[in-house]
Amino acid sequence: MEKRNIYMDYAATTPVKKEVLEAMLPYYHDLFGNASSVHVFGRGVKGALDKARDEVAKLINADSSEIYFTGGGSESDNWAIKGVAFANKDKGNHIITTKIEHHAVLHTCEYLEKHHGFEVTYLNVDEDGRINLEELKNSITDKTILISIMFANNEIGTIQPIKEIAQIAKEKGILFHTDGVQALGNIPIDVKDLGIDLMAMSAHKIYGPKGVGALYIRKGVKLHSIIHGGAQEKRRRAGTENIAGIVGFGKAAELARIHLDEHIEKLTKLRDKLIKGVLEKIPYTRLNGSLKHRLPGNANFCFEFIEGESLLLSLDIVGIAGSSGSACTSGSLDPSHVLMAIGLTHEIAHGSLRLSLGDMNTEEDIDYVLEHLPKIVERLRAMSPLYEKVAKGGN
Amino acid sequence: MEKRNIYMDYAATTPVKKEVLEAMLPYYHDLFGNASSVHVFGRGVKGALDKARDEVAKLINADSSEIYFTGGGSESDNWAIKGVAFANKDKGNHIITTKIEHHAVLHTCEYLEKHHGFEVTYLNVDEDGRINLEELKNSITDKTILISIMFANNEIGTIQPIKEIAQIAKEKGILFHTDGVQALGNIPIDVKDLGIDLMAMSAHKIYGPKGVGALYIRKGVKLHSIIHGGAQEKRRRAGTENIAGIVGFGKAAELARIHLDEHIEKLTKLRDKLIKGVLEKIPYTRLNGSLKHRLPGNANFCFEFIEGESLLLSLDIVGIAGSSGSACTSGSLDPSHVLMAIGLTHEIAHGSLRLSLGDMNTEEDIDYVLEHLPKIVERLRAMSPLYEKVAKGGN
Repeated sequence: MEKRNIYMDYAATTPVKKEVLEAMLPYYHDLFGNASSVHVFGRGVKGALDKARDEVAKLINADSSEIYFTGGGSESDNWAIKGVAFANKDKGNHIITTKIEHHAVLHTCEYLEKHHGFEVTYLNVDEDGRINLEELKNSITDKTILISIMFANNEIGTIQPIKEIAQIAKEKGILFHTDGVQALGNIPIDVKDLGIDLMAMSAHKIYGPKGVGALYIRKGVKLHSIIHGGAQEKRRRAGTENIAGIVGFGKAAELARIHLDEHIEKLTKLRDKLIKGVLEKIPYTRLNGSLKHRLPGNANFCFEFIEGESLLLSLDIVGIAGSSGSACTSGSLDPSHVLMAIGLTHEIAHGSLRLSLGDMNTEEDIDYVLEHLPKIVERLRAMSPLYEKVAKGGN
Repeated sequence: MEKRNIYMDYAATTPVKKEVLEAMLPYYHDLFGNASSVHVFGRGVKGALDKARDEVAKLINADSSEIYFTGGGSESDNWAIKGVAFANKDKGNHIITTKIEHHAVLHTCEYLEKHHGFEVTYLNVDEDGRINLEELKNSITDKTILISIMFANNEIGTIQPIKEIAQIAKEKGILFHTDGVQALGNIPIDVKDLGIDLMAMSAHKIYGPKGVGALYIRKGVKLHSIIHGGAQEKRRRAGTENIAGIVGFGKAAELARIHLDEHIEKLTKLRDKLIKGVLEKIPYTRLNGSLKHRLPGNANFCFEFIEGESLLLSLDIVGIAGSSGSACTSGSLDPSHVLMAIGLTHEIAHGSLRLSLGDMNTEEDIDYVLEHLPKIVERLRAMSPLYEKVAKGGN
């Protein structure tokens, strides 16, 4: 098979769709006004903001007035957590989250613990990466003001029991935030039906531009701002609106909504073929995450006796772009906190590979990976003294 | 003179320059990778980030390592102030700023006062909008941890004695942050020579895209992050880098640096012609701000006996886009806090008009304004009972 250039790192970021970029372009020059200005240059862009807000709202069945645009998913997570924490300091200082959150949640919680007097419970997850609802209930105290649990994990793709979590939070009068960055546009999300109070979103994970995100804030939820200043976003998030970016987010949300069913069907099929093929063809391999509660485009493996970094480099040489852990922590030598939380040892966690699928991937891409990956793993293992022992002596 | 479409609201926002947009475009699709990824899609964008950082650094004579990209000027101001405040809580809780800051600074300070136990001194300004250095010195206490004074005002264009302020701060061991959003690209800035510790910047005020800014942090300055998460921006500002936006900022900074002298010369000439013409042609008119210490593109007037809002709408009809106060507070009926601080009465502050000039403006534009503005002001005044009295009886 001829050398290809295959992108399988959609969980890190996605290319901007052609229609999305086309929708954005007019707002860089012809329609460049500040949305807060009263003259013709400003008026011309207000409608575009409203339309984008409607589209993001529709994708998650929210009301437009509950969508607040931000500079990205990390800002949204920070806003939700710090905003609720600071606004409810008088009520309590306890936050519940999980051990497998994205760092935008984990490091924010750690910061609040270290510098602002909050206490955080980090829930365990089972070997599939799911939390235990009983443990959640038991960890609630009369000081608990916020539960922040991600919708779907960025590394292993595990989807949490969001509706059940929201129900527990509601019963206890505790606010529930979910990091929806990986779930958005990849599985159906109905914030009303699920009972979510706050949800962080990002445009660049759904074929929109980088540098723009949103926070869903259910009507009536009170939180402090983290970016104070001008009256934008109904006085809750200051800063001149990134109109082009927001318009791109809106268009990406619209396309994601229209194509959601086929997107899920296509990716699920490709993913299942990939997982099946890898597990069949490569011995001493583990699929990380849940088979049942899994994002359509996520595949995450551990290959015993090899290093994830060498594997990535070898894949890169044959034109396959994957990742080891999340993009945000690349360069770190620590094993993934997510893989550790699902019970893997340091050695095994080091040999992990995430292949996250998306719009441009085809059946042929999967065939190509299934042709090259086994050979690369075999070659890398051949250099491992540990593997030699196993291969000779049996496990 | 034929009807024109004249933009004179460059202080609110600027159009993205053609070269800037061209530089950005490849990063939406062909080079869309996450800068943190190790594969070819990620590696391809790292160099672009570095180059943009170099260009922003060069524009203000900083070291590249001292430039941190953010989601905009407001985020940068919030980061600098909250970051320094929270990191120095143990040292003291006193912040000094001025009464004429942008709301990104004012509201951030008010928030810290109201919710986090800080105390803030808001310095007065003289009728030109400049602070008094003696008052600054006298307001310093042993609890003072931060001085935040804007470089140049967004409404009246007044430039502060930044070097002198920095010197006072340095002598007392206090950090000095300046909101440089309006000054950047419009006057020479040398952070080393001036002795600035932190400076907020924004791309969309210098013909770059909206939704991207930067914070200059002098080497050695310690502050808390406000967006925690991934390891981006040397672990100080989390979130997938907005590569296209950052590349655009870099290109805009490069162009601003190369053309700075001619930009200043051109705008100063146009501004002076505009100011002279307006003051000559329209009675009962006041120029707000300093004649000497003034941004090249700023003109701000108060026309007695009329309302700024009606004036803007009338100007809009003849194709002149100006503003009343800053864009961020449009829609508010309160008079500008800046105009109040320089000593104007409510009535007079209400009749203000900011015309901020930029790249697309020409001598003909000024002629057009000087033809239409006096007529509009006269017509609006004719409807004012107060003016009628003055016109009949003399002032």
